[in-house]
Amino acid sequence: MNLVLLEPADFLNGDHVRLHGRRARHVKEIHRATIGRELRVGVINGKIGFGRVLQIDENALELTVRLQSDPLPPLPLHLILALPRPKVLNRTIAAAVSMGIKQIDLINAWRVEKAYWGSPRLSQENLRLQSILGLEQAGDTTLPIIRLHKLFGRFVRKESLELAGKLAVLAHPGTEATAPSSVTKPVVLAIGPEGGFIDREVNTFRDIGFTEVNLGPRILRVETALAFLVGRLSDRFQRPEDSIRS
Amino acid sequence: MNLVLLEPADFLNGDHVRLHGRRARHVKEIHRATIGRELRVGVINGKIGFGRVLQIDENALELTVRLQSDPLPPLPLHLILALPRPKVLNRTIAAAVSMGIKQIDLINAWRVEKAYWGSPRLSQENLRLQSILGLEQAGDTTLPIIRLHKLFGRFVRKESLELAGKLAVLAHPGTEATAPSSVTKPVVLAIGPEGGFIDREVNTFRDIGFTEVNLGPRILRVETALAFLVGRLSDRFQRPEDSIRS
Repeated sequence: MNLVLLEPADFLNGDHVRLHGRRARHVKEIHRATIGRELRVGVINGKIGFGRVLQIDENALELTVRLQSDPLPPLPLHLILALPRPKVLNRTIAAAVSMGIKQIDLINAWRVEKAYWGSPRLSQENLRLQSILGLEQAGDTTLPIIRLHKLFGRFVRKESLELAGKLAVLAHPGTEATAPSSVTKPVVLAIGPEGGFIDREVNTFRDIGFTEVNLGPRILRVETALAFLVGRLSDRFQRPEDSIRS
Repeated sequence: MNLVLLEPADFLNGDHVRLHGRRARHVKEIHRATIGRELRVGVINGKIGFGRVLQIDENALELTVRLQSDPLPPLPLHLILALPRPKVLNRTIAAAVSMGIKQIDLINAWRVEKAYWGSPRLSQENLRLQSILGLEQAGDTTLPIIRLHKLFGRFVRKESLELAGKLAVLAHPGTEATAPSSVTKPVVLAIGPEGGFIDREVNTFRDIGFTEVNLGPRILRVETALAFLVGRLSDRFQRPEDSIRS
């Protein structure tokens, strides 16, 4: 936890916050915070700053906060992800959010097992918790929008994906082209299920303007593939003038 | 498991293999293999091909194998990693190996907790198992060389790191420069512990020719940072002529 994320309901008044539960435990047990200690804090969908520990009791922790920085800029990358198996969903969402992704569409595909759609991990409550864990890791505050689409065709054809002015890439094993690097326009990135999208699905993506790219000769786990592609595709981050080239 | 990795001891004779334990269970329970089914196989540090299931019994599985392809080319990236906490070590090693990294040095640093060096996960047996899991995921066969260095200074100063003709980059939060993309020469990549290398350690890396780069404004988990940087730094993979540029 590189930032303690505050909810509006945590505020007792203007700059005075009381934390319970998971966050209070984490600050006490992992950060081993003592009274007077300063912690990095941020308000959900809001500013970032510091909180000074005022009081620690058995179940809660009180802080006085100063919020001076704007939220981090979002990564201009929209992720379309075939629903991964529940076991890897949590860490994939948290990893995506930790990299600054703010728009995630979880979609069905031929090789997505039907049972995955029944997982309790798809609850809005769990998706929000995983997003918060990703933000706390990254030091970010802006929650992503995560949507579920049980109908592949309806999503790809009818949800009028906004592709104008963007680079739309589909990670697809066996494709000849490698993923481009340091793309300067917004990216829409689609990643298939284990075993990949089937030909019909690939054709549908191609029809609406996606380019297939590979990730090299190796087959990567979804969370590895995601970070690999985000690192490759994303251009500079905050300061375009500082980029170095080899 | 996208490839069943075979040990020399698995061979009953020239092309006849008998598997026990974890691999036999995986092929039976996850692949639900039946007699006659073909599976992708490879020999440790050797060739890749197919195995046809000959016989399945309670504890074992027999295959006849044809090995026709050479091993995948290694990724020309040498990873130097401050020893991560045991909880994340396994998946970080497996992820590194799945991306084709063949040289991994796990090193000490000021912010590596001493207790991590006592973890049973650092046994050669466990590091080999995690490497095998990474190879089986990737469809690769060549084991990495993983070395442990409990003395930071000795490793960085005296192990005569081979940096000639290579790009040596140190992932360091707060640095101005972003990581370069699509580097065409071999890379030596150093990643610090949670909280980063301390100034003295950064200076030591700088003295021997490393350049510090950031990963953007967010703090990533080590396994996310690793895949992000490998995706960013690595140039083309197998077929230089097929790379596309945006």
